[in-house]
Amino acid sequence: MSQTEYKFEGWMGLDPSAVEGKMVWQEFEPKEWEETDVDIKVTHCGVCGSDLHTLGSGWGPTKYPCCVGHEIVGTAVRVGSKAVGGIKVGDRVGVGAQSDSCQGRLGDCPECAMGWEQYCQKKLVGTYNSIHVNGGKSYGGYSLYNRVPSRFAIKIPDSIPSVEAAPMLCGGVTLYSPLKHNNCGPGKRVGIIGVGGLGHFGVLFAKAMGADKVVAISRKASKSDDSLKMGADLYIATDDEPDWATKYRRSLDLIICTVSSSKMPMTDYLSLLAVNGNFVQVGLPEDGTLMAPVKPLMPRLKLESSMIGSPDEIREMFELVAEKNIKPWVEEIPMKDANQAILDMHAGKARYRYVLSNEQ
Amino acid sequence: MSQTEYKFEGWMGLDPSAVEGKMVWQEFEPKEWEETDVDIKVTHCGVCGSDLHTLGSGWGPTKYPCCVGHEIVGTAVRVGSKAVGGIKVGDRVGVGAQSDSCQGRLGDCPECAMGWEQYCQKKLVGTYNSIHVNGGKSYGGYSLYNRVPSRFAIKIPDSIPSVEAAPMLCGGVTLYSPLKHNNCGPGKRVGIIGVGGLGHFGVLFAKAMGADKVVAISRKASKSDDSLKMGADLYIATDDEPDWATKYRRSLDLIICTVSSSKMPMTDYLSLLAVNGNFVQVGLPEDGTLMAPVKPLMPRLKLESSMIGSPDEIREMFELVAEKNIKPWVEEIPMKDANQAILDMHAGKARYRYVLSNEQ
Repeated sequence: MSQTEYKFEGWMGLDPSAVEGKMVWQEFEPKEWEETDVDIKVTHCGVCGSDLHTLGSGWGPTKYPCCVGHEIVGTAVRVGSKAVGGIKVGDRVGVGAQSDSCQGRLGDCPECAMGWEQYCQKKLVGTYNSIHVNGGKSYGGYSLYNRVPSRFAIKIPDSIPSVEAAPMLCGGVTLYSPLKHNNCGPGKRVGIIGVGGLGHFGVLFAKAMGADKVVAISRKASKSDDSLKMGADLYIATDDEPDWATKYRRSLDLIICTVSSSKMPMTDYLSLLAVNGNFVQVGLPEDGTLMAPVKPLMPRLKLESSMIGSPDEIREMFELVAEKNIKPWVEEIPMKDANQAILDMHAGKARYRYVLSNEQ
Repeated sequence: MSQTEYKFEGWMGLDPSAVEGKMVWQEFEPKEWEETDVDIKVTHCGVCGSDLHTLGSGWGPTKYPCCVGHEIVGTAVRVGSKAVGGIKVGDRVGVGAQSDSCQGRLGDCPECAMGWEQYCQKKLVGTYNSIHVNGGKSYGGYSLYNRVPSRFAIKIPDSIPSVEAAPMLCGGVTLYSPLKHNNCGPGKRVGIIGVGGLGHFGVLFAKAMGADKVVAISRKASKSDDSLKMGADLYIATDDEPDWATKYRRSLDLIICTVSSSKMPMTDYLSLLAVNGNFVQVGLPEDGTLMAPVKPLMPRLKLESSMIGSPDEIREMFELVAEKNIKPWVEEIPMKDANQAILDMHAGKARYRYVLSNEQ
């Protein structure tokens, strides 16, 4: 390993109390350098719900010490001689929730061959709390520098500001992927359940893709105005309309559900779908196993779940964002205030995505 | 109502003990005649699992007295002046599990307008144990005569023997519909779970549709030979291969599950699907609510449920059957032995579908 002139430092969770705002700033040892890698000087990193789930060991035991953050934007400062994607030193690149997959190095992989790297069976490497193929540990973007296999470093179109590109790398593509995969566009009536970091991207993208109707669905009326400003044609506050499930029965063709709770009213949600409709769950609860009744699916409804998006889907999403000038709702916060940011995120204060930024 | 020269008589369940072989033969009053109706002299009627569920009130309280049977073939003996479908007296016609839908008579119905009558929201009339739009009760085909709205009387191609056509009207189309709807054909690896009356149609149809590979899946090895004769390329006896879920992981694109139990190993079944695969549940358990975990759907698997098929799908299925000369495995039993037939059906003795026949 050749020595670098820069140090890898960041906010580290040392135990589950980290999610209570107790991350500490310290140095970490990135994966051992390979010539397929890129080092990135981090300028921005979005704050994703997954960061909180991981800091608190909500999805299972976390490999502490852990530096979270997987909506990373920065500048390539070192590019390996075997890097792919045409990345050059000085380029602005982003990294999402995944930083590697087997890429056929461990035998045939139909998923990687098809460009569905996020569903690789042989080696899924998360951008943090994961182990790389070479045995090194992955650390995220609440940090000064990030080291990533070049296949998962995505060039960002010039017209998209870094602070806006960052939260799209996980939150954005998590919605873009199922919308695109399920043919969101003219002829489709689309519902987005949960208007938070994920859901707000759903409303923005569904509108930009040309859906006939975009319906934002949340419990409280408090996000109604924002949702309509984002482009929703209708807002349903389920707490305020007790008969919502019957009133809007069979009125949607595609629903993306971002709610992260095993107690959600799944049967009522499904009743909103017309025959042949699709329901895609993208929230992954930590409060138990989300179960769905099969019988309500009988009018040929399809219940699906999907996870983040592939590097190619991230590129496609950025093309759409640049072409349609899509503007996410973000709040920029100095990296030094990361602990407060996760507390505020947990308290549901984000409108709609926090992005940490390093001093330039 | 004009008087008919024939009497409507059949095997009637009077209480839940009927499923124990205690149906009694007696007369019943069909729905009041309308000029859109057809009367059919029943020659054959398949024995469907639904008949047993209904005779025993397994899916909820049955409206006794009840004459079951919804895989009816016979001869049109009376055709209303406003009947549709070009049916003439003397034609050989069939009736499946549904005998009417709203057909737009109760206001706009997108489902009926699209030809998805089986998912009509306003008025679903089952061929038995149901109430017609005019208030009359529906009685099934364990009988001498059946009265049915003409839209749901399907002409049967000459080349298909009645005893073979009968079980296709419910059991057959219940498999044909999801196979067709999910593009079964070249390029698809198809699994059929449960090799019984429904499942055997799945194997036959998937093969006839040109699937790349047809895999029959059941617990015991006892149905292996039959399944291979029906056209399966592989048979998996899950009781004999403890590691089946890992051994065949991600090896199928489409699964139709005919198992009617809320205790089925859903997570293991889902693991057989490749990324973007579809799982369609067609069995409807009476032993509790079938629930599915959502997390295993994450590689963009689609979980769907579907119910019987529309009149148009029945016609399409018959075209395929005639064209490919598909031969279901049926056992013909005299109508007088209906009580024994349901006992044997319940005991799992059918190989693979019983068909009751009246003396000609």
